[in-house]
Amino acid sequence: MKKESKETAVLLIDCPDHKGLVHAVCDFVLTNNGNIINLGQHVDRTDNHFFMRIEWEVDDFTIPSDKIGEFFDTLIAKKYHMQWSLHFGARKPRMAIFVSKYAHCIHDILSRYESNEWDIEIPLIISNHDKFESLADRHKIPFYHFPITKENKANQEAKEIALLKKHKIDFIILARYMQILSSQLIDSFPMKIINIHHSSLPAFAGANPYKAAYLRGVKFMGATAHYVTEELDEGPIIGQDVVKISHRDSINDMKRKGKDIEKIVLANAIWSHLNHKILIYKNKTVVFD
Amino acid sequence: MKKESKETAVLLIDCPDHKGLVHAVCDFVLTNNGNIINLGQHVDRTDNHFFMRIEWEVDDFTIPSDKIGEFFDTLIAKKYHMQWSLHFGARKPRMAIFVSKYAHCIHDILSRYESNEWDIEIPLIISNHDKFESLADRHKIPFYHFPITKENKANQEAKEIALLKKHKIDFIILARYMQILSSQLIDSFPMKIINIHHSSLPAFAGANPYKAAYLRGVKFMGATAHYVTEELDEGPIIGQDVVKISHRDSINDMKRKGKDIEKIVLANAIWSHLNHKILIYKNKTVVFD
Amino acid sequence: MKKESKETAVLLIDCPDHKGLVHAVCDFVLTNNGNIINLGQHVDRTDNHFFMRIEWEVDDFTIPSDKIGEFFDTLIAKKYHMQWSLHFGARKPRMAIFVSKYAHCIHDILSRYESNEWDIEIPLIISNHDKFESLADRHKIPFYHFPITKENKANQEAKEIALLKKHKIDFIILARYMQILSSQLIDSFPMKIINIHHSSLPAFAGANPYKAAYLRGVKFMGATAHYVTEELDEGPIIGQDVVKISHRDSINDMKRKGKDIEKIVLANAIWSHLNHKILIYKNKTVVFD
Amino acid sequence: MKKESKETAVLLIDCPDHKGLVHAVCDFVLTNNGNIINLGQHVDRTDNHFFMRIEWEVDDFTIPSDKIGEFFDTLIAKKYHMQWSLHFGARKPRMAIFVSKYAHCIHDILSRYESNEWDIEIPLIISNHDKFESLADRHKIPFYHFPITKENKANQEAKEIALLKKHKIDFIILARYMQILSSQLIDSFPMKIINIHHSSLPAFAGANPYKAAYLRGVKFMGATAHYVTEELDEGPIIGQDVVKISHRDSINDMKRKGKDIEKIVLANAIWSHLNHKILIYKNKTVVFD
Repeated sequence: MKKESKETAVLLIDCPDHKGLVHAVCDFVLTNNGNIINLGQHVDRTDNHFFMRIEWEVDDFTIPSDKIGEFFDTLIAKKYHMQWSLHFGARKPRMAIFVSKYAHCIHDILSRYESNEWDIEIPLIISNHDKFESLADRHKIPFYHFPITKENKANQEAKEIALLKKHKIDFIILARYMQILSSQLIDSFPMKIINIHHSSLPAFAGANPYKAAYLRGVKFMGATAHYVTEELDEGPIIGQDVVKISHRDSINDMKRKGKDIEKIVLANAIWSHLNHKILIYKNKTVVFD
Repeated sequence: MKKESKETAVLLIDCPDHKGLVHAVCDFVLTNNGNIINLGQHVDRTDNHFFMRIEWEVDDFTIPSDKIGEFFDTLIAKKYHMQWSLHFGARKPRMAIFVSKYAHCIHDILSRYESNEWDIEIPLIISNHDKFESLADRHKIPFYHFPITKENKANQEAKEIALLKKHKIDFIILARYMQILSSQLIDSFPMKIINIHHSSLPAFAGANPYKAAYLRGVKFMGATAHYVTEELDEGPIIGQDVVKISHRDSINDMKRKGKDIEKIVLANAIWSHLNHKILIYKNKTVVFD
Repeated sequence: MKKESKETAVLLIDCPDHKGLVHAVCDFVLTNNGNIINLGQHVDRTDNHFFMRIEWEVDDFTIPSDKIGEFFDTLIAKKYHMQWSLHFGARKPRMAIFVSKYAHCIHDILSRYESNEWDIEIPLIISNHDKFESLADRHKIPFYHFPITKENKANQEAKEIALLKKHKIDFIILARYMQILSSQLIDSFPMKIINIHHSSLPAFAGANPYKAAYLRGVKFMGATAHYVTEELDEGPIIGQDVVKISHRDSINDMKRKGKDIEKIVLANAIWSHLNHKILIYKNKTVVFD
Repeated sequence: MKKESKETAVLLIDCPDHKGLVHAVCDFVLTNNGNIINLGQHVDRTDNHFFMRIEWEVDDFTIPSDKIGEFFDTLIAKKYHMQWSLHFGARKPRMAIFVSKYAHCIHDILSRYESNEWDIEIPLIISNHDKFESLADRHKIPFYHFPITKENKANQEAKEIALLKKHKIDFIILARYMQILSSQLIDSFPMKIINIHHSSLPAFAGANPYKAAYLRGVKFMGATAHYVTEELDEGPIIGQDVVKISHRDSINDMKRKGKDIEKIVLANAIWSHLNHKILIYKNKTVVFD
């Protein structure tokens, strides 16, 4: 997962489908001396909506990096009513972790961080408990303990938002954070908060999905990574995985097996997000691979 | 899947857990000169409930086959408050198929039937359409066409029940039968009707699960075989399978991929049912393998 | 799987990677008034090799259909040293089936054929046994029986080739055909013969893979669809699937479970092939989805 | 995964199949006032070989724990030519880790250790590199650095064996240990050394399986946990898993995806081993679940 030696730009685009969209975007890059190293494109035929991800080397690009957005918007995006975002590989994404008391996801994330599997910064960990303070210390990541009660929730979240803004956080991972976020926090990081839910959504949304799955007697259980929106467990799904179970599995067995797919599904979602591979449209995702 | 050369009996048992249950049942079989060829056992630790499946050769069994049930009930079952059922391998299960207009499940079932993959009789096919009459003819299976309207439903189902009883049907497969059965039919064949639903229940119960899955943007879709109870899509789940999908899959792609897991999941459920491998308890199944 | 109402062309391309390839191909289609409805593109970074599949509506295309190949070759392909093939949706692919004595794959294929799941012609079935003659009759497909011995093999295959050529066969499916093809037949249909092997190649190539998998004690078994080349079981892999097994599975259980993934993997490979979604390079496939 | 409050014994048994084996073993436990809490049993019909795992509470058992083995051997095992082993839940298994330079498996193991997911002791970590010394320190596990060259290998391994014996190590995990063990070490811990291989064995045994899988163009890749025997990558397979790949996956993508299944497959194998759920027979495993 080493960074490429050359600096690259990633452009994520979506708009109503139209003849010549791929051509127009490629033309913009090639005419200005960009070397395309990745191109993903998808048309949703039901909605006639177009999605594109293009990555190119900007070392010899005619347009200076801080002007690319303006030029693309003026020359291409406006003409086709495109939504777009532009990202540069040189800037390390800054990720915050929210966690409560379950260890498997945060351990897995910090192991990858320590191994340089991901090219990111983790400027802080926030928790409503103090359980993982020493773990954070060990990884030299500042740890902030914000106990949450019904009464102090709005106040504590306001402090969290200020802290996140101060640290220029790009996106937030809820690594089994057992609190429902209020809209002030969600709205401050729209489509920038990723949650891991321990079921195959939409099955078993809400609390205690393992128990619910056990009682229903399902033969597969799952995990779902999704962006957090105001509707609980209803945000755009980034990734899912499942594991076969049987009557032999107790709720404890389900928890044990579930933890392993939760951490992998979450890690894959983080990987796609930080590589700017996800487009959101109509509460669904396009995840380029 | 050839029948064993020797005649066997299968006993399915469940009861509150108790010391010595396996021992007691084995003792009953061994003392009377039975040769155990399969033994499956499971204890649900949450409910402290015991499940057992035992299969033995009855050729030299001291108790005559038509008396085994009575003796087992008197000597063992009553003592431990067991629910039990007894099945003999020599008797071919008699299976009825209900179908509407989708071809994939009935084609798959009849292919297995023609190849002698299953040791069963299919005395009749019932449909609310006439689409598959020639298919039934070709396999020399009597085909009964019962068009269903809101007005005639009770009447038609009464005729269907009479027909099923007349043909001594053991169990019914709904091979994508697009009608909700009423309670008179369900109650006539309790836990003897298997439906295939084209989603990973409990997700996307009811009509149009593929469309609902498409709109929700899930990354896995599934199929579920379950026993039919009065609550629609709420009966005990026998088996499930899933297939990975992505934003590239249109609803048509989902239907295409879904059909393949539907037919396999249904076939596996039929196989478990006809081999007397399924026990039902608290709206869940224990499926011995 | 209905055919689109408008006539389309599919162009499959591969060549050494080069700046502007997507642009050049899109330009060719758009400049001549083609409406692109599908575009898939991939660059293998290890080999710096470029792959593309583009499908467009040709109703209003400026270049007449029988001239598209010539124009594309002259204007684009030669310049970039492209390998390419051109296909038209209006022409139904003509598929031959070779089969021996296993029923599951041929049953599955003919079920899909009968349900119009695939838009193909099956002009003939060839077998070294007469077992499926009545099945072929029932589907009104001419059946040719070519018993094979060591002595008559070359002669029989020569007749088969003549027959296949006479019927303008586009591609051949070995639906569990238990004979090794000789090079004269393989060379007559290069990368046009698809075999289904009952293991996850390269594991358990050759005869009796289920027995070998049983003896090795693997916990997953698989099926592989691949193009046939002169090296047995070594051709480009189109698709694979696996199924979990355990110590409980006898060789018979493995066969039963294996048959279900074999037929699905084979059907998926056929679907990709007949929709011109497969490119072959260095004994591997790019399968656009 | 908390230990049960009551002390338990686990008996693993295998022998030629015989009438009444389950009965005889249950009789031994029940007659002596044991409360069976788990019973798994399997007969391999191909070899007519019997396998059994039985776990019971020994608090009120008539035979003292240190005499159970002797009594069982005399009264039951000799009669039926049983191989057996006896384990007590109260004794924490002592596990050694061997590691080289890959972080994902050792990180995952130590995370589970830290979270008390497993009820074990890890008295030491051995490595041919010093990379993970600080990681070991952080978890307060003694770390031993044994650089290996062709010349010193026998000598270093002799020291390792002495160290392992001194620490009363029960079993060894090769957490991506990039050295082939010599027979002196393997023979000192027969069927007590678990390796994780980064392919679906028997496919791609030996070095560089990801590269080999990439070159062959497979559509699934896998990981295999197995006991180490003198034949490289040929020992009894404990568990496997696979992940779907496509032409889009570079060797680096394969490594990234592979690491996640490697660590999960290895963790599952450890879990089965330390819970005494594995029986080995004819270079295969029976893994009770």
